[in-house]
Amino acid sequence: MVDIAARVWNHRWKIDPIVRSLIDTDFYKLLMCQSVFRRSPRTQVTFSLINRSTHIPLATLVDEGELREQLDHVRSLSLTRGESTWMRGNTFYGKRQMFTPAFMDWFENLRLPPYHLERVGDQYELTFEGPWPEVMLWEIPALAILMELRSRAVLETMGKFELQVLYARAMTKLWEKIERLRALDDLRIADFGTRRRHSFLWQDWCVQAMQEGLGQAFTGTSNCLIAKNRDLEAIGTNAHELPMVYAALAEGDTALARAPYDVLSDWHEEHDGNLRIILPDTYGTEGFLQNAPDWLAGWTGIRIDSGDPATGAETAIRWWQSRGEDPREKLIIFSDGLDEAKIAELHRQFAGRTRVSFGWGTLLTNDFRGLTSGDALAPFSLVCKAVAAEGRPTVKLSDNPRKAMGPEAEVERYKRVFGVGEQAEMEVVV
Amino acid sequence: MVDIAARVWNHRWKIDPIVRSLIDTDFYKLLMCQSVFRRSPRTQVTFSLINRSTHIPLATLVDEGELREQLDHVRSLSLTRGESTWMRGNTFYGKRQMFTPAFMDWFENLRLPPYHLERVGDQYELTFEGPWPEVMLWEIPALAILMELRSRAVLETMGKFELQVLYARAMTKLWEKIERLRALDDLRIADFGTRRRHSFLWQDWCVQAMQEGLGQAFTGTSNCLIAKNRDLEAIGTNAHELPMVYAALAEGDTALARAPYDVLSDWHEEHDGNLRIILPDTYGTEGFLQNAPDWLAGWTGIRIDSGDPATGAETAIRWWQSRGEDPREKLIIFSDGLDEAKIAELHRQFAGRTRVSFGWGTLLTNDFRGLTSGDALAPFSLVCKAVAAEGRPTVKLSDNPRKAMGPEAEVERYKRVFGVGEQAEMEVVV
Repeated sequence: MVDIAARVWNHRWKIDPIVRSLIDTDFYKLLMCQSVFRRSPRTQVTFSLINRSTHIPLATLVDEGELREQLDHVRSLSLTRGESTWMRGNTFYGKRQMFTPAFMDWFENLRLPPYHLERVGDQYELTFEGPWPEVMLWEIPALAILMELRSRAVLETMGKFELQVLYARAMTKLWEKIERLRALDDLRIADFGTRRRHSFLWQDWCVQAMQEGLGQAFTGTSNCLIAKNRDLEAIGTNAHELPMVYAALAEGDTALARAPYDVLSDWHEEHDGNLRIILPDTYGTEGFLQNAPDWLAGWTGIRIDSGDPATGAETAIRWWQSRGEDPREKLIIFSDGLDEAKIAELHRQFAGRTRVSFGWGTLLTNDFRGLTSGDALAPFSLVCKAVAAEGRPTVKLSDNPRKAMGPEAEVERYKRVFGVGEQAEMEVVV
Repeated sequence: MVDIAARVWNHRWKIDPIVRSLIDTDFYKLLMCQSVFRRSPRTQVTFSLINRSTHIPLATLVDEGELREQLDHVRSLSLTRGESTWMRGNTFYGKRQMFTPAFMDWFENLRLPPYHLERVGDQYELTFEGPWPEVMLWEIPALAILMELRSRAVLETMGKFELQVLYARAMTKLWEKIERLRALDDLRIADFGTRRRHSFLWQDWCVQAMQEGLGQAFTGTSNCLIAKNRDLEAIGTNAHELPMVYAALAEGDTALARAPYDVLSDWHEEHDGNLRIILPDTYGTEGFLQNAPDWLAGWTGIRIDSGDPATGAETAIRWWQSRGEDPREKLIIFSDGLDEAKIAELHRQFAGRTRVSFGWGTLLTNDFRGLTSGDALAPFSLVCKAVAAEGRPTVKLSDNPRKAMGPEAEVERYKRVFGVGEQAEMEVVV
């Protein structure tokens, strides 16, 4: 039986929207947004899309009209009643009313602010300017839209069965990874793959496959919409944009040096338990930990998001020991460029010495490497970052100089203030 | 949108029928049936299921009640108006009205005769007795039902995503074969996989994948229902049951020796062109060709269905040459135990020397080898054969002694009459 009504309904769509919900975003965005909404609601920021994979000519692959339609569609979205009910009523990290009534009232009335799009050569310049709590919510949908429009452009050239076999191959590939991960005792792993997913439907499939294939070892997804629809835990804490904006707003070097700790001090007031996760690499992990106040050593764990992950974890373990903490009670979350072999390796290396958890991103939700001719669907490194706050440029150093960003003079100043010396360059996988 | 009506409708089925149409069968069955209907409508025959793969305990795997329900469902089927219209109005092998009005009148009123089912140890004894034109139509549905019930028994133990990945793997596997076959110039290949298919839906998928992946090189399918639904050529000519029954009915050795030629003499009256395909191996290819009348050398081609296929093809080529025929104008159809590597090898060896065509069976529609733990879905060798005619046992020798069947004394007599000496044993793949 053909469902005629469904087909007719589908005919009506002017476009097939990529992002269909304001909560089709990472959980940490909403947590951070609430924090920013409370503390810095009027701070003006600029977010900008940056294609680190310059060999991918995005503006050639993706039609500007289609891109505008997708971005415009996101601007038409508002929180639905069911989404609001979920955010207000659901338990996050074991806590009720994670989102305050004041924040929810604001969020329910929110529409995303305008975007600025310009084609420059083979790339797009896509920026968002306005109040921080509004602009920051563009990051994930903007990335997801560009990733999926690029996927669609490639998929459009393929035959019906070629398409089926493409997804068959992708499913097989992921399932074989899951089968190997299943062999790891006490694995804890979550989906962090929203921003650079192949597509929404594919991410949704990946999450469900992880759920069936890994059972309790699969702890949840960073994607709020999928968490809601699939009755999973929404996972995530905080990200680089907080220290980057705090740092940009700092007056003078002393305030700059203090900015990353101010971020966590604010977070400390708002959250406890498993939400107290340090992200130490914004301006170099070594210096950050050396100069950290003692109360930070009491936090639950640390997230390793750049540099060599084993080195970062060893650094964290030594730091906890030096502050009289027991690393076996601490949590290390690996979240940078993971694939199943690296996960297994890190798990072997650190399980038992500390609590270990993994946030698996792009190579969970977009590992189409080797599945098409010319590898046209291989994922690439697209980011959307806060590049300015109140007209001042932001800086990120991270533990991998290839991930650094900001004006050269400012980068040098930050390196000096944060005592960052030589850093090992590492390939940015995705 | 959920199609409520479709779901409610599906709830109503007492069973999920495996065979839903009397033309969900091989085209050559219908061609032979018409011939038998005309010449031997009252000949009493017995068909019997034989599981050559005795390590597969069919009666343990497949529930007897479910098997009976499926067989009973087939007995409830009759030709639909659309199916009848297709058979009456379609062009087969370039010819209109392949099926005569007299045959169609009979077929439209046909219901399949009763079956006899008994469990004996770990196997089923499943037999069909009655008039030849009715009983012969049980062969393909009986095989398809048992194959698919065995598949379903294994599939029932699997999770939702495990299932999806199983089919993803099977699709990938087939597509990779298709991609390798695509490299062969002037390939001609058809689906012969109805009888030992994994399932109807899977065969239908395989056929469509071949259609998209191979284009003109894919010449059609032996399955009439799929040929009708997908607007493809229905492919097939004749099979061993004709010489086996003719031979069983022959009075004395002289008549026995002549029986296989009588079959083709009758066929010669009824069909021409690409339907004049010799199946020479029922009682040994060598002797059959040596003693064949000259008019047979004028036939279009030969089908190699047992023994080493290259040897069989060389034998045929030498035979045509010895009869003053040009092998380059002849057609050799390979149809035994083919997989893509063997197809490529035979294609390389014979293309140009003769016209070559392939009837790809079990390893097209049921290559689930290596896809589940314990290889529980690997295909196996199940046949359903005429074992008696008018109370006399039938005999098959073929070019592979492992495919031989019949009472020992009769096998010896046939070997003597047809001058069959030593034969090379070959593993029966599927």
